Order: sequence, then structure tokens, then C-alpha cells
Amino acid sequence: MSVKDGRLLDELREVVGNGQVTMNETVLDQHGKDESYHSPSPPDVVVFPRSSEEVRAVVKVASAHHIPIIPFGLGTSLEGHVIPYDKGITIDFSEMNRILEVREKDFLVKVQPGVTRTQLNKELKKYGLFFSVDPGADATLGGMAATNASGTTSVKYGVMRDQVRDLEVVLPDGEVIHTGNMAQKSSSGYHLNSLFVGSEGTLGCITELTLRVYGIPEHIVAARASFKQVDDAVEAVVSILQAGIPIARCELVDEPSMIQVNRFSDTDYKEKPTLFLEFHGNEAGLNQDVEFTKEIVADHQCEDIVFEEDTAARNKLWEARHNLAYAYVHGHPGRKLMVTDVCLPISELSGAVQHARKQLEELELIGGILGHVGDGNYHTSLMIDLDDPDEVKRAGVYNERIVEYAIERNGTCTGEHGVGVGKMKYQEREHGGALKVMGKIKQALDPDGIFNPHKLVHQKKEESK
Amino acid sequence: MSVKDGRLLDELREVVGNGQVTMNETVLDQHGKDESYHSPSPPDVVVFPRSSEEVRAVVKVASAHHIPIIPFGLGTSLEGHVIPYDKGITIDFSEMNRILEVREKDFLVKVQPGVTRTQLNKELKKYGLFFSVDPGADATLGGMAATNASGTTSVKYGVMRDQVRDLEVVLPDGEVIHTGNMAQKSSSGYHLNSLFVGSEGTLGCITELTLRVYGIPEHIVAARASFKQVDDAVEAVVSILQAGIPIARCELVDEPSMIQVNRFSDTDYKEKPTLFLEFHGNEAGLNQDVEFTKEIVADHQCEDIVFEEDTAARNKLWEARHNLAYAYVHGHPGRKLMVTDVCLPISELSGAVQHARKQLEELELIGGILGHVGDGNYHTSLMIDLDDPDEVKRAGVYNERIVEYAIERNGTCTGEHGVGVGKMKYQEREHGGALKVMGKIKQALDPDGIFNPHKLVHQKKEESK
Repeated sequence: MSVKDGRLLDELREVVGNGQVTMNETVLDQHGKDESYHSPSPPDVVVFPRSSEEVRAVVKVASAHHIPIIPFGLGTSLEGHVIPYDKGITIDFSEMNRILEVREKDFLVKVQPGVTRTQLNKELKKYGLFFSVDPGADATLGGMAATNASGTTSVKYGVMRDQVRDLEVVLPDGEVIHTGNMAQKSSSGYHLNSLFVGSEGTLGCITELTLRVYGIPEHIVAARASFKQVDDAVEAVVSILQAGIPIARCELVDEPSMIQVNRFSDTDYKEKPTLFLEFHGNEAGLNQDVEFTKEIVADHQCEDIVFEEDTAARNKLWEARHNLAYAYVHGHPGRKLMVTDVCLPISELSGAVQHARKQLEELELIGGILGHVGDGNYHTSLMIDLDDPDEVKRAGVYNERIVEYAIERNGTCTGEHGVGVGKMKYQEREHGGALKVMGKIKQALDPDGIFNPHKLVHQKKEESK
Repeated sequence: MSVKDGRLLDELREVVGNGQVTMNETVLDQHGKDESYHSPSPPDVVVFPRSSEEVRAVVKVASAHHIPIIPFGLGTSLEGHVIPYDKGITIDFSEMNRILEVREKDFLVKVQPGVTRTQLNKELKKYGLFFSVDPGADATLGGMAATNASGTTSVKYGVMRDQVRDLEVVLPDGEVIHTGNMAQKSSSGYHLNSLFVGSEGTLGCITELTLRVYGIPEHIVAARASFKQVDDAVEAVVSILQAGIPIARCELVDEPSMIQVNRFSDTDYKEKPTLFLEFHGNEAGLNQDVEFTKEIVADHQCEDIVFEEDTAARNKLWEARHNLAYAYVHGHPGRKLMVTDVCLPISELSGAVQHARKQLEELELIGGILGHVGDGNYHTSLMIDLDDPDEVKRAGVYNERIVEYAIERNGTCTGEHGVGVGKMKYQEREHGGALKVMGKIKQALDPDGIFNPHKLVHQKKEESK
């Protein structure tokens, strides 16, 4: 039976209610794309469940008829994760966006998958708490867990996987499981939390998350340090880490990207390779860290370091940084964003960034380099004219060279954006035989291949039998 | 073919050399037990490989003949992980104990699985680095990864799983894979690192580890704070965490355990419920933390707080803490150690410890309470007379009550010791339907059930077909 068959729609409407199932063209189109250059492809139908029970019921219907299921948060993916190339049912979580419980004393919060990170932080502020992971987009927490998102604070607080204590997941067979518990640590059984985080909707549908949160630091100082050259900035970061300074944010923005920042965010920051830094801690410790950092950047030809202690200036700085992808898009009408996302051992970062800049010139592409350099993760934001096949090809070559460079040096093709469809071609090169293990896990948990098919890992037809 | 069959021994000797295969009774006995109360059962044969290639060859022989494989580090398990109840081949990693590479700039180290944590730390000290995870025993890093070990520093630096960047693993089919890479973060593919860490030798044999290490902190201060009552000590910990003090170690030792400490370690610490604390940081920040901590413990009826700034006194303190299990064993000749190991959300910890003390009295058992209370993880060290069936039974009831209390409050039956055979009976209660997912993973990767059979997860006979 196909989705277009009226009976299936009837079945869906029976389990979730009439108004929560739609085939409206506009809605389908909205769910057929993400924020990347990947070509759109709408689903057959979009369902808006309001509870785990409803998700479960939808999955059971889909499973009975072997119809693909694609979980959808806000569509902020950069690698085509939510694009239903195989059609099927998109489950949109926007009506499951409640914060269910704040366990102050335990530094835990329980949320539905449609809650966004800024929505959560607004609520947590009342308790003197915050949620640390901050990708550029105001993504949903379900989506962030599905792709193992990270952001500017990961260098201190870790990535999404480090924050997940428990997930409620609806499996392809309609069973509902919990992948963890509320204890700070556990050695009980296989670590399903970490398996489902980053599984990109290919193993199940996340319907509830228990996440670790942190106390808002007693003292916060941000700084902008501008350098003559990108390499100096990168080497300064390595020295800061070597010195054991517990830096909370450590972002590189190169010269072309600083120009975009100023244009889009109405700032007048120096248009030089810049580190955006932030320090969290108690006042005395932080002052000592700041003094030490000043000495270190001076050793690396820092031209200017500006500290922002007041909240408004600090917020402006990080907003400008977070809006950088949008700044690029805004500054290049008619072009599409393609972002590279490799991560390398920190000792290889300086060489990698030099290599990336050289390739940019050689391939004559428009773009800037930025990223979470404290983690060894950098991005090139390329602005591509999709109507120019030669430019599209050169962008592909660029990405390939960047990825190859990283993998050859024990890095990864994606530090935080995930595999989706965009990074599938690099999986074999990166994982070798381990990719077969991933395939076996997919096959064991989703033998019919209905969950976000043909994303992250190929499922061979022979295996599906 | 059974192991006793001469041909199989010949095959093993062919792949690893004569002197590395033994059926010597003493050696077999050494490999038939761990440091717990679980009854011993020797393997058929012990093999001492010297390289990943040799491990692979041994696994291929075992796999071809469907003979169990049990990876063995130093036998310091507390839950029977390495006891070969199904006989078979024990692979002892003591001849694979080389530190392969120290990547200073990347805060990474590559080691063979037989390296112990103190051996590694001795080497790292030359570089101003340290490895953070410190279970009581001087375990091997392979064993620590297999059980997701942790210890006194986890409250700040995390558990074993947080330190593992990459594992080389020999799978049951003889394939060799890498589960990760050397980048600080990755969103590429399913997170096999976390799946294999804590898999207790049931999915494969770890033959190499790439681990995260840390710079030795600029400044370290340790303290002993003694309290009137255990509950006061526990509540003080909750307040320290609430205050956002980045405490590096935070250990509870109750009154009976302090008596053992003094007897075994020749110290004259106050025999009162005590917190062993440690602070890491820069000098200014640490001083502020220490002052704040003094105020907090005073609010919780702390009777006395003694700071140990010099290295010798500090080392003595942590040595005494680490030797506590041995102190108990030493102090109770003829009795065997049974250690409970639950972990709960921190808000439930005080109630849990009170409950544990009450059960101890009610069931008339000898033991003390201690643990990593900053993580919500505490242990009761019970000393049992295995020749007294009634006492053995009461100890079992005790463990069950403790575990039930923890699971009912969203905790776990094992915070750091692992499942082995001792915690298998609680897996269904703790994981519910998720246990079936674990079974499917085991079945997908080890369909013949040869890797550490009947540990961690039951593999049904029907599934094995």
C-alpha cells in the first residue's frame, strides 16, 4: 500500500486525529528541504503527533505497511538528514515541545523533542541554570541529539552526547524503550544512549530526552583577539590549551568571515583573523586565566585584544558569531551554503587550515573559514551558485580534499553536522571495517529499513531479506 | 572439537608460539577467579599473545571451533567478568603492555590493553600529563575500558567512556576494526567507541586504546572533612555541587571504613564520617573555591577540616582511600568481599545512604559505606563468610534491596563495577525493553556467542541459530 492510498491516510487520521495529518503542498515542501545545498524532495504526508503514544501509533502504521518514517525537528540540518528522498511519512515534532521537568538539584531537565535550545535556556535561567550545547541554528533538542550536535561551548562542556542521560525512543517495531537513566554514571549494559545519539533517526524516533544542565557560572568574560594571520590565531589556541586554561569558548573567524559579521550584525569589529574567547569560573580564578591568556596571545603576534565584561556586549558578540552562517547566506543572494565540517587532532589544525585556504584560492571559490578551533573542528562556509555546474563541481572537489586531508591525519569527515546524505560517500574511507558493524546494527534494529532510509549507513538489499 | 583435543592446542601453538600457550594448573587457577566473592572456574587454556595479529589469529582458531574466548587483564573485576564459567580460551594481555605513543600536543596516548593505570601515569608524568581514571585496583586499561571503570576523579574528568577516543578491536569473526579516531569530537556514524566501552568482552577483544589525558593541574589541594553523621557529609556534597565548585574528587568514607583506613594504612585520621576532597585549578581560583567550601561544610555541622597541601600527605590520603577494599579484606581474614555499586541522581543520595545503613543493621551484616558521592555513586563493602549459608543469603538480600531502591529512583544497579555475572539478574528490571535491543546487538556481532558468553546479556539459544 502506498501513502497516496486513502486507506493509509485514514489509518493515520485514526491514530492521531484529523488535523494532525496533512498532504498540503506547502507543508510538504517545507518538510522536503533543510538549510543546505542538498536538493529538496517532499514527503508523501506530514504528521504532527502530540504524545509518545501517538508517535508509537504512527510508527506502527508505517511499519505494518513498510513505509519510510523521517523524524523532523526544525529542518536546520546542513547535510540533508530530514529530506525524504524515499518519500514516506515525516513526523514533525513541533507539537511536542514541552519542558516536562526541571530537576534543579540533579542538574537535569526532561524535555520533549520539539523544544528548542533557546526555549530551554529561557526556562532554565529562572533556576540559575543553562543548557550548554549551541549550534548556530536554534535547533530542536531532538534534532540536536539525533545528529550529536555541538557548538561554541563544547571545548569545556562537551557535545550533545555528553549531555544525554536518557532517551525515550520508539523503535521501528513500535516498542518504546529508555536508553539510560538519571544517574550521573552507569556501567550497566551496552551504552544505548551513545548509540542513539548521532543515529540520525535511522534506528528509532526520540520522543523524550533527559539532559544534563549546568549552573550559570559565577563570572563570565568574553574577548575578541585579532591577529595578523590565521595561523597565528590557531597556534595561540593550541598554546592556550597546552597551558591548561579551562577556556569555555574558543572560536576562530577569519578575515572574509569578519567582513560578513560586520555587515550582517552591524558591528565594527576589526576585519582581521579573530579569536572569539570566553572564560567561565570564579572571579579570582578567571582573572588569573585572563592574564595568562593575554600573555599567550601576545606571544602569537596578537594585534589587539578587547574584553567584553558587560552582558549586552557579550551577547552581541556571540549572536554575531551564531548568525555567521545566515550572514553568509544573506550576503550572497542566489547562492546556496555548503559548509565543510572536518575535525582533526589539534596538532594538525594549523596545517589543515592553511591547506583549506590554499584550496579555496586554487579552486576559485567564495567562502570563509571559521570554527570551534579549541576542538580541532573548523568549517569553510562556501557560497555556491547551483546554476553553475562547474562551480558546483569545484565545491565538491574542495569538500573532498578537505575531508581527505582530515581522515589521513586521524580526523573525521564531520565534527558536528552529521552524515546525512552529504557525508555518506566518506564513511567507508573513514571507518573501514567498522562500517560493516554499523550496518549490522542498523539491520538488527530496523530490518525493513523504514527509519530514515539511505541516510548515515547503506543497508544492502541482500541484508534486508 | 574441545580445547582438550590436542589438535586445537597445536593450532594455538602454531599461531602464537609454544611458550605462549599453557594448561599449567596454577596458571589456569589464577585465571579462574577475580577479586570478588564469585565462585572460581578455570579456563581450559590460557594464551599470552604479543600483538594484535596474534590475538586475531587466536580468535580465528576459537571462532572456527566455536570455543569461548575470555579477555583477561589483571583479574581485578568485582563482578566475575573474567571467570570462564563456560570454559574455553582465556586471552591474557600481560605481554601486550607497551605505551605506544604519547601525543603531548593532542592530549592523547596510545597504549596496548595490558598497560596498567599506574604504569601509564608514571610515563605521563615526564610530560606533565596524567590519566584521570583511578579505580581502587591498579587495573589494566583494557579491562577498565571493557567495564567502563571510573573512580575518585570522575566527578570532574568523567568516566572511562569519556576518555576513549579510539579502540582497535578484534571482532568475533576475526575482523579488526577501529571504533573511533583522534579528533576531539565526531558526528560520523554510530558511536562504536561508547558501545565497545563497557561491553565487557562480549562483543570483541580490545587490542589497542587511544585515550585522552590531561595536564597536571597547576595547583592541587586535598582535604579531609569529618562530620557528626553520614547524612551531613552527603548533604554537604550536594551543596558543594550546587554552589558550582568544580571539585575534582569528593569521596565519602563512613565511620567503620575510617577505622579500616587507620588500621591498614597506619594513619591517625579521625574515625568519623569523612569527606576526602580535592581541588584542581590555578592558585587564585582554587583559594576562592577552598574558602567557599569551608563555609559550606561548616553549614553542615562539619566538626573538623584538615587541608593537605604537600604532595606526600596528599598521596598518603589517596593511597589510604584506594586501599580501602584491601583494608577490608585484610581486616577480615576468612571472609570474602562483596561490594554493592549503585548510583542514583544526587538528590536521592542521602536517602539511599540512610536506607543502606538501616539495611546493614537489620540484616546484621559486617560492612561500611563509602564511595564517589559527587557522582551519586556509593558502595557498601560487605565482608561475608561464604561458609555461612544464612549470611550469604542475607548479603544477597542486602544487595537486592539496595539495587531495587536505586532503580526505583531512576538510578542504576552498577555505577562503575559493571554487570559481569553478579548484576545480570537486575538487567531486565533496570533496562526493560532496552535489554532486547542489547540482545539484538550481541546477536548481530557475535552470532555464535563465543565472546565472554553468558556475561552482561543473555543470548537465547533460539537467537543463536
